[in-house]
Amino acid sequence: MEYRFASKISQVKSSAVRDILKLTQGSDLISFAGGLPAEELFPVQAVREAADRVFSGGTGSLQYGLTEGYIPLREQLTERMALKGMKTSPEEMILTTGSQQAISLLVEALTDPGDVVLVEKPTYLACLQVFQLHGLRVIAAESDEFGIVPEDAERLIREHKPKLLYAVPTFGNPTGKVWTTERRKQLLELCVRYGVPVLEDDPYGEIKYDADAEYPTMFSLDQAAGGNSVIYTSTFSKTVAPALRTGWAIGDAAVIQMMAKAKQAADIHSSAIDQQILHHLLKHFPLDEHIKVISSSYGERMREMQSLLQAQAIDGLTWIEPKGGMFLWVELPEGLDAETLLKVAVKKGVAFVPGSSFYGDDPQRNTARLNFTHNKGERTRIGVERLAEAIREFTARS
Amino acid sequence: MEYRFASKISQVKSSAVRDILKLTQGSDLISFAGGLPAEELFPVQAVREAADRVFSGGTGSLQYGLTEGYIPLREQLTERMALKGMKTSPEEMILTTGSQQAISLLVEALTDPGDVVLVEKPTYLACLQVFQLHGLRVIAAESDEFGIVPEDAERLIREHKPKLLYAVPTFGNPTGKVWTTERRKQLLELCVRYGVPVLEDDPYGEIKYDADAEYPTMFSLDQAAGGNSVIYTSTFSKTVAPALRTGWAIGDAAVIQMMAKAKQAADIHSSAIDQQILHHLLKHFPLDEHIKVISSSYGERMREMQSLLQAQAIDGLTWIEPKGGMFLWVELPEGLDAETLLKVAVKKGVAFVPGSSFYGDDPQRNTARLNFTHNKGERTRIGVERLAEAIREFTARS
Repeated sequence: MEYRFASKISQVKSSAVRDILKLTQGSDLISFAGGLPAEELFPVQAVREAADRVFSGGTGSLQYGLTEGYIPLREQLTERMALKGMKTSPEEMILTTGSQQAISLLVEALTDPGDVVLVEKPTYLACLQVFQLHGLRVIAAESDEFGIVPEDAERLIREHKPKLLYAVPTFGNPTGKVWTTERRKQLLELCVRYGVPVLEDDPYGEIKYDADAEYPTMFSLDQAAGGNSVIYTSTFSKTVAPALRTGWAIGDAAVIQMMAKAKQAADIHSSAIDQQILHHLLKHFPLDEHIKVISSSYGERMREMQSLLQAQAIDGLTWIEPKGGMFLWVELPEGLDAETLLKVAVKKGVAFVPGSSFYGDDPQRNTARLNFTHNKGERTRIGVERLAEAIREFTARS
Repeated sequence: MEYRFASKISQVKSSAVRDILKLTQGSDLISFAGGLPAEELFPVQAVREAADRVFSGGTGSLQYGLTEGYIPLREQLTERMALKGMKTSPEEMILTTGSQQAISLLVEALTDPGDVVLVEKPTYLACLQVFQLHGLRVIAAESDEFGIVPEDAERLIREHKPKLLYAVPTFGNPTGKVWTTERRKQLLELCVRYGVPVLEDDPYGEIKYDADAEYPTMFSLDQAAGGNSVIYTSTFSKTVAPALRTGWAIGDAAVIQMMAKAKQAADIHSSAIDQQILHHLLKHFPLDEHIKVISSSYGERMREMQSLLQAQAIDGLTWIEPKGGMFLWVELPEGLDAETLLKVAVKKGVAFVPGSSFYGDDPQRNTARLNFTHNKGERTRIGVERLAEAIREFTARS
C-alpha cells in the first residue's frame, strides 16, 4: 500500500534538535544543540527513594489515574505557585507529559485550523511545530532587548486577530532574554484589550543565575489586576529530570477543563508513576536548594562558554549575556548562513541549532543557539574550538 | 476574559467512563464502568525491583530520550511481536503513552479534517473522541457474531472512501467479540483492494481465558500475504499496569516516522522512566506466566458475574459469553434506555457504561457494558443485585 499522509503533517518540519540528537547518539560529536540539562546533577538517589516510597504504598500506585493528574501533586504545585504570586486550585491545574503537551492541548482547546497565533521573533521551535501541525498561521512580532515591542504586537493583533499569544518572557528560548516588567504589563494590557489569551511558557524561570532576582510572571501580574487571560505552563524537566516527563498548566477552570477533554483523547493520562514519584520527591527532597545548585552551576557554564568564545576573538560574533536558562544565542558574522555552517561543524565534531529553526518566517540566517548546560570543562573547550574553526573556514573564504 | 473554544473540541463528548470514574473516586459506589484491571494482581514487587535497577544505572536514566522510545524496550518488543507472527524492527515501532496515544498519532499522520473513518458498530468510545476531536466523520459498519459484515463494509467504503478502518478484532471493546480468521481475511482483502489502511487495536488480545486459543492478528495475516496495510497497536496497561502508560505501534516505517513527527509536537516523548522500568521487568519477570494468571482470574470473574446475572433471571437481559478481555456486553430489556437506567443505578450504588457511548451514530440504547475485572466476590454480588434492582424498577413500571 502506498500511504497518503495528512496534508498538515506533511508540512511540519521535523525538529532540528531531535534529529541532531538522534544522529549524535553514541558518536563523539560534541553537541551544543539539544536542550539537555547537566546529567551529572540529576538527583537520582532522591528519585530512587521517592520511587521506592511509591511502590511500597502497594498495588494502588499502578492503577489508572485521573486525566487531570495525581491530586496530591496538584495540591503541592498550587502551594509552589502561590509562593510565586500565582493563586490557583487543583481544579485550575492539569498535569501534562512535559510542558510541550500543555502547548499542544491548549492549541486544541482554543484554535481551529486557519486561526492565527502571535509569537515573539524568534521563538521556541517546538511550539512552531505544534502550530503547523494544527494548521495555524504564525505571525511573529519584533522583539528588542526589553521583550516584544508593543507597537508591533498591536499592529499585528489589529491586522490578524490572533487567537493566542505564545510567550516565553523569562529566559526565552532561544534568546535567553528576560522581558522587563513594564513590557509584560504592556503586552498584557494589549491582550486584555483585544481579547487575546496568553500562553506563558516558563520552563526556565527557576534557573536564575542570580538567586535573588525576581521576575513576576505575566500570570501573576494579570491575576493581581483581576484578570484570567493567562494560561501558565511549566515543567519539572529542567529542575528535576526530563525523563519524568511531567509538566503542568494553570489557568481559567473552563480552559483547563477543555484541555482535559483534549487530553482524554490524546492519551487518557500521563504517567501516574512519574507523578507519584514527584509527589514523594517534593515531600522529602529540598528541591529549592537543588535548583540553586543547578542554577549556579549553569551560570558558571555559561560564563565558561562565554570566555572561551571571547578568547577565540571571532570578528562579527556577538551575543547578549543571559541571566538564566540554558542557552546562548549568538549572531554569526554577517552573511554566514548557520545551516551551511552546521554541515561543516558536524564534520569537525560539534553541533548547534541554526537560528532559522526558531523563526515562523523570514529567518535571520546568521544566528545560532548554543546550549552550555550539557557539556563542561574540556568538552566545552574542544567544542568551542571546533566551532571557531568551522566559522573561520567561511570567514577566511570571504 | 470570556474564552471562545475551538469548534471541534466543543463538539467532543467528555468520556462517560472517565467522568463516572471521577464521580466515584472515594465513594462506596460499585463500578462496573471503568476498564480497570484487578488492582490486587498488579506485579508491584517486580515493578519496584525493576525501578530500582533503572535508578541504580545512574543519572543517565533521567535524561531526555528519543521520541520513538527507549531502544532496548523496542528491541524486546520486536521479539515478543515475532512470537505472534509479526515481524518488525525497532525502526518500524514507536512507543506511546498507552495505545490511546497511538490512535491519536495515527489519526494525525493519516487524516485531514472532514475525512471519513470506518469503525465497527459498536466500537471503543475513546477512539470516537479522537475522531471527533480531529474533525473526522465516523461511519459504522454492521457487525454480526463473526465480526464486521464484509458486504456492509464494502458498501460503506465505496460510498464514503474512508481514510482508515479502525478495528478491535480480538475481544472487542465493548462487545468482547472475536472476529473469525475468515472475516479478518475478508476485511483485509477489501481494505487492500480499496487502499484503506487498517488500525488494528489490540489491548486485550493476550487476556485469553483459554490459554491455548490462537487468534491471528490482522497484521500477521496481512504481512504473511506480503502486505503493509495494517498498523498494529497494543499496550502494557492490561498485562502489567495502566499507571506505566506504555503502549506501542508497529507498521510501515514511513507511517511510524510520520507518527513520530506528530509525537515530537505532542509531547517530545513519553515517560522514559516507565519505558526503562518495563525493559528491566521484561528481562527479569516471567510476564507470560503472569498474563496466564491474570487471564485465568478474569475468566473466573467473568463466569462469576455471568452466574450472578443468570441467577437474577431478568426477562429480556441477554449477552454472549466473551472468550477474553474485560467486558460483558449486555442487551437490556427492549425499550429500556441505559442512560436513564444509569441514573437510577448510581443512586442504588452501582455504575456501568451505557451502550450509546460506543456508537458513532444511531445507538442501540438498550445496551450496556459491564466490567468484571475490577471487582470480585462480595462486591460483584452486591453490584449485580443493585443493578438488577434498578432494572426491575423499569420493567415493573412498564
